[in-house]
Amino acid sequence: MGSSRSLIFIPGNNQRFLEKSKGINSDIICYDLEDSVPPEKKDVARGYIETTIKELQSKNKEIDKRERIIAVRTNSPGSGQISTDLNKVVIEGLDAIVIPKVDDASQILEISELIAKLEGERNIPTGHLRIMPSIESALGVVNAFEIARCNERVSSILFGIFDFLHDMKIDTPHMDILNSYMYARAKVPVDARAAGVDSIDSIWQDINDMNGLNKDLKLGKKFGYTGKCIIHPSQIDPVHKIFSPSTQDIEWAEKVVQALDNAQKNLATGAVRLEGKMIDAVHYKQAKRILDSTQLTKQ
Amino acid sequence: MGSSRSLIFIPGNNQRFLEKSKGINSDIICYDLEDSVPPEKKDVARGYIETTIKELQSKNKEIDKRERIIAVRTNSPGSGQISTDLNKVVIEGLDAIVIPKVDDASQILEISELIAKLEGERNIPTGHLRIMPSIESALGVVNAFEIARCNERVSSILFGIFDFLHDMKIDTPHMDILNSYMYARAKVPVDARAAGVDSIDSIWQDINDMNGLNKDLKLGKKFGYTGKCIIHPSQIDPVHKIFSPSTQDIEWAEKVVQALDNAQKNLATGAVRLEGKMIDAVHYKQAKRILDSTQLTKQ
Amino acid sequence: MGSSRSLIFIPGNNQRFLEKSKGINSDIICYDLEDSVPPEKKDVARGYIETTIKELQSKNKEIDKRERIIAVRTNSPGSGQISTDLNKVVIEGLDAIVIPKVDDASQILEISELIAKLEGERNIPTGHLRIMPSIESALGVVNAFEIARCNERVSSILFGIFDFLHDMKIDTPHMDILNSYMYARAKVPVDARAAGVDSIDSIWQDINDMNGLNKDLKLGKKFGYTGKCIIHPSQIDPVHKIFSPSTQDIEWAEKVVQALDNAQKNLATGAVRLEGKMIDAVHYKQAKRILDSTQLTKQ
Repeated sequence: MGSSRSLIFIPGNNQRFLEKSKGINSDIICYDLEDSVPPEKKDVARGYIETTIKELQSKNKEIDKRERIIAVRTNSPGSGQISTDLNKVVIEGLDAIVIPKVDDASQILEISELIAKLEGERNIPTGHLRIMPSIESALGVVNAFEIARCNERVSSILFGIFDFLHDMKIDTPHMDILNSYMYARAKVPVDARAAGVDSIDSIWQDINDMNGLNKDLKLGKKFGYTGKCIIHPSQIDPVHKIFSPSTQDIEWAEKVVQALDNAQKNLATGAVRLEGKMIDAVHYKQAKRILDSTQLTKQ
Repeated sequence: MGSSRSLIFIPGNNQRFLEKSKGINSDIICYDLEDSVPPEKKDVARGYIETTIKELQSKNKEIDKRERIIAVRTNSPGSGQISTDLNKVVIEGLDAIVIPKVDDASQILEISELIAKLEGERNIPTGHLRIMPSIESALGVVNAFEIARCNERVSSILFGIFDFLHDMKIDTPHMDILNSYMYARAKVPVDARAAGVDSIDSIWQDINDMNGLNKDLKLGKKFGYTGKCIIHPSQIDPVHKIFSPSTQDIEWAEKVVQALDNAQKNLATGAVRLEGKMIDAVHYKQAKRILDSTQLTKQ
Repeated sequence: MGSSRSLIFIPGNNQRFLEKSKGINSDIICYDLEDSVPPEKKDVARGYIETTIKELQSKNKEIDKRERIIAVRTNSPGSGQISTDLNKVVIEGLDAIVIPKVDDASQILEISELIAKLEGERNIPTGHLRIMPSIESALGVVNAFEIARCNERVSSILFGIFDFLHDMKIDTPHMDILNSYMYARAKVPVDARAAGVDSIDSIWQDINDMNGLNKDLKLGKKFGYTGKCIIHPSQIDPVHKIFSPSTQDIEWAEKVVQALDNAQKNLATGAVRLEGKMIDAVHYKQAKRILDSTQLTKQ
């Protein structure tokens, strides 16, 4: 399996959305206990999410299990609610926990121990549950590399733009897609990859603005993100399209492989020009990865 | 009180400017002992600054004290002159010390001890004097987070573009507003906020170019700076305007609060669409901060 | 001597290129054992390079020695071939080793010890050989400051775009000159300078696109690079031109020196306006450096 391309947030207290989520084809379904759920609905939401995970789990046992990852976003380390959240939702059928507003690695280590204890008690294979820390503060951005590499459960890190802007005291009406968070948004995927994990870009807030979504997706991909958080099912297809090789990519990859195979056989050289540009071993590896991934993608 | 929006540098050896500074309404008045004062005038400047602080102090005791912060920029840690500088200007009436060309946190810790000793000897409340390290070198940029968080006296960090460019061996005629120092200029406010302190952007050098000043101000604000260094009183009003909520900000904030208050009361949801864009708890906090700050601003 | 402006890669298994390299006027000639040499040609290449260095060395003894630096790029720390590479090419006449795909400082420390041993055995002055680590991975970007400052042999660090993009899983057809590696490319020269060493920018891949080369060169210079890796002799002149002071630079420098000399003599001030822009001690230092370097440059 490649990286997860899409992570959709489903408000945990909305029964209609929870029901609809069962048929959604994003790579990760993430039931939310945090900012989309008002304080007095947290308890109800925990129950709804528990039920939904159980229903999905019994369904999965009957039919062919899809490769979807089932996740829950808990409340933040600062909320004091994480152990209550985990206690309710860490059950068979859950694959990953998204932790919002992570500031440093020690928070993840503590949560990993809580999860290990629950896995033991609840008949879940040890280490099954992944953690996806969400970087949403200046301190989180500073510590992103340490957060990404601190624990084997961490499979990817998320970037959360709006909380980051809030922490930076940058008001939303003044943000622009490039400058307002360029440094933080570009640092997160580099720190993630340095730690050997994937990175999932922040949401695009305007559900009707598909042009804006596409521009933002391309920018995120250029920064090195391997997926995107989304807030509406209509965003899934554009996201999957961007994070899959294009026809142009595949054509480029085929030409590179052919040119370098030829060069090595006939010219005993590892570097050759293709359409004017010098290519060598690294382009060969890139091309191979593109061609391999087209075998795997189920677009 | 909010963050300081403006810090004006006043050359310490210019008596006319020192006199005029008493009536200037920038949030911080910073008397300079460093680069605007030639070596042979340092001693004279120390005396002039001492006199000016004393005059301001006796005036403040008579009239309603304004919320201005009185600061002095000493010479750099590398100059060997900091203890002479501090010895002369750390007197009642001084609020902050700007340290130029700070490379690492140990320099700040040493200076903090010098200041503590002088506070004790001179009847200044312990801890009254804040330190504002100025980041003006590649090493300072690398260490900015450690510098910002190393000591409780640090209330904000400054960014100094021209010395940074000089250290980087980037010649001034080649600088451009975006690329020449983008990384450093964007890293400083994130490191500052991660340490819980404010950041004050570098000067705009061309006093007559108000358009350029405004573009540069907006870019700094997008990066997360909360204020700007200035070199002429004519720059104060544009700076205060940019770092105060606009009419557009206030309208946005009022709509957000209303939409989310309604959503929570009537729909029991913490997330709702406003003009197409999904908003939730974080936007509520942003909106509240804008509305709170409009109560405080005395523009 | 100033910084090295140009580093040309010469495939180590191509006898025609090795021969031609003897007359090339780049500041650094770097014979490649890594990606331009196919696996089965590595041994042959080691022999060719050894011979070339010996020939250059005996020539240098006869004629006036030019200031060119002779370097070899070994295989990567991960290849297991570095000690074989060094054993063959660390001989009198070699000045520097380029290490590709460096991830952390410990790799450099280990290589420095290998080199010290060979220097001792082969009558090379201890410490003569410099190391130029090449940053080509996300982890290398994270650790760039530590890599740059870990050892006295490190004289500069290189940035390698294509391997970095590959490590980031950013496919070449999607890269754009600004966004795809902006953060990494901007961080490397700042980390280098913070460690007191130079930085040499990544190659421009399209040999026929001189416009693209020039744009890319200017961007690299704005980021603070002091030189550029190149893959064809036709790129040397444009590179040397960009990394030498222009007529415009020299005119600016002369005006700055004159204005500040006057200001200090006649007005006893260290800050003055030049064509509207406030200049002071830092601009004086910049101007002096430009004027000094024009004495040294032999363009």
